[in-house]
Amino acid sequence: MARYSNGESVFSRLARLLEAFEDDSPVITVSELSKRTGLSLPTVSRMVSELVERGWLHRDADRRVWIGLRMWELVSRAAPTRELARAAVPQMTELSARIGQNVNLSVRQGVEVMFVETLSAPNAVPTVLRGPGSRLPLHASAAGLVLLAYASPMVQESVLAGPLPALSARTVIEPNALRALLSEIRRTGAAFCPGLIDPGNAAIAVPLRSAGREVVASLSAIVPNTDAARAVVPLLRTAGAQISRELHVRNTPPWQPGSEDLGESGESRHNGGSTPALRHETSLVGFRRAALG
Amino acid sequence: MARYSNGESVFSRLARLLEAFEDDSPVITVSELSKRTGLSLPTVSRMVSELVERGWLHRDADRRVWIGLRMWELVSRAAPTRELARAAVPQMTELSARIGQNVNLSVRQGVEVMFVETLSAPNAVPTVLRGPGSRLPLHASAAGLVLLAYASPMVQESVLAGPLPALSARTVIEPNALRALLSEIRRTGAAFCPGLIDPGNAAIAVPLRSAGREVVASLSAIVPNTDAARAVVPLLRTAGAQISRELHVRNTPPWQPGSEDLGESGESRHNGGSTPALRHETSLVGFRRAALG
Repeated sequence: MARYSNGESVFSRLARLLEAFEDDSPVITVSELSKRTGLSLPTVSRMVSELVERGWLHRDADRRVWIGLRMWELVSRAAPTRELARAAVPQMTELSARIGQNVNLSVRQGVEVMFVETLSAPNAVPTVLRGPGSRLPLHASAAGLVLLAYASPMVQESVLAGPLPALSARTVIEPNALRALLSEIRRTGAAFCPGLIDPGNAAIAVPLRSAGREVVASLSAIVPNTDAARAVVPLLRTAGAQISRELHVRNTPPWQPGSEDLGESGESRHNGGSTPALRHETSLVGFRRAALG
Repeated sequence: MARYSNGESVFSRLARLLEAFEDDSPVITVSELSKRTGLSLPTVSRMVSELVERGWLHRDADRRVWIGLRMWELVSRAAPTRELARAAVPQMTELSARIGQNVNLSVRQGVEVMFVETLSAPNAVPTVLRGPGSRLPLHASAAGLVLLAYASPMVQESVLAGPLPALSARTVIEPNALRALLSEIRRTGAAFCPGLIDPGNAAIAVPLRSAGREVVASLSAIVPNTDAARAVVPLLRTAGAQISRELHVRNTPPWQPGSEDLGESGESRHNGGSTPALRHETSLVGFRRAALG
């Protein structure tokens, strides 16, 4: 692969540039991009100009930089979760409209849960999620807890080994208590988490299974934290079972945990190695900023 | 920007690679990628390996290549249409569940309409759309006709100058008839297109306006082509007006036609110049394959 004179590959610089777009402030100036990437202002300017010309980045009238629509299009068309989303969206739409609240589809990425589709309804409660691509720690969210409960023992142990950051006073950060919670989720087939992140919200999640009965994703709802919240559990179960059935009958395989599965690659056995740990930290910072902002 | 020994930039090769992922067959082998890009098998193998290592591409057990989840995440988080989608999804969810059919959000890209969000409901009629990132020609789809009706005169003229490919016997390809149709859409504020692409479906679309009252997107529904289809028009109008109001009150600017706007850049005045024309051709080929497959 072609390299710069300092030996850094072009992809590596491009990766640094793309990773500078954070969840909580995705639209940034060239000077902010320079600060976040550690690349010089002229270098970033040159890269941005070439990428804008190709439609990979978009620069608006205020000279803020976004991902370009052309790049979004190419990536969306071949997204590994596209078939999963297509199988899930009809049931998600119906459920979201029925409860008048937020319904999300997510998959595991290392020690975090990543949201693939985030549907909502008029007057739904606000949530910390900013749309597709948002992340939360596995152990600190209902969607993540379900994915963690059905992950391989190695993934579970690497999460339990910590760090276990708390997003609120309700986050379970004591390993034995977390083990008990995961066991409870496997026993009931659902995570019911009133006030876990936001005291005013209750999050509920159920597993989605592929044709091989493996848990490949989670379906979750975020509703007002009232006595009525528990009534959403059976609705979510029914929708989850229908989506799992849809995944069975489709030919194209949906997203399967693979290269990112901790425990399957030697280098990432202990709490995900440096890269996932770094990602974890990065998005937590973003999350905290969003939660405080 | 770093270049290969033959003078081609790394981005250019990467672009060739990404553009090889077509809408109708996004998951492909390395040898198919080599065929589609015109790059040698060893070159494609090397690039794919580096990109898989970075999580930008994903290679499954059957050695098929997808876009990597990490890349999808980064691009989704800073998508230029993210705020537009967040503003539209609640109304889209409600409408899709209410009519039990497909509801789509789309923006103009050159002489095509690109779908940003595609919601559906259980038992909705099948459509040609494969999810976010799908494209159709402006003049041959309800969503596209609305965007074309409110586009600048220069964009309209460049489309009217042709080529005007027909996706079905109902596609309006005669320039004067198309002019009359666009004028009718502006007069009524909606496109009602029974049987335009599929004889069994009716497509209906309305414009979505930004705070500046500019049409920035279209909201469309695809429903069974029956006498009841026309009853969806007022529902779509109401949802469209509510989304436009939501776009007014949000601080973050939604997607605005800009760099891709034909007529605003000298080089793309005549039917979009070579690049948009090529894109047009590429995705039409994909569309036809999908329609026939």
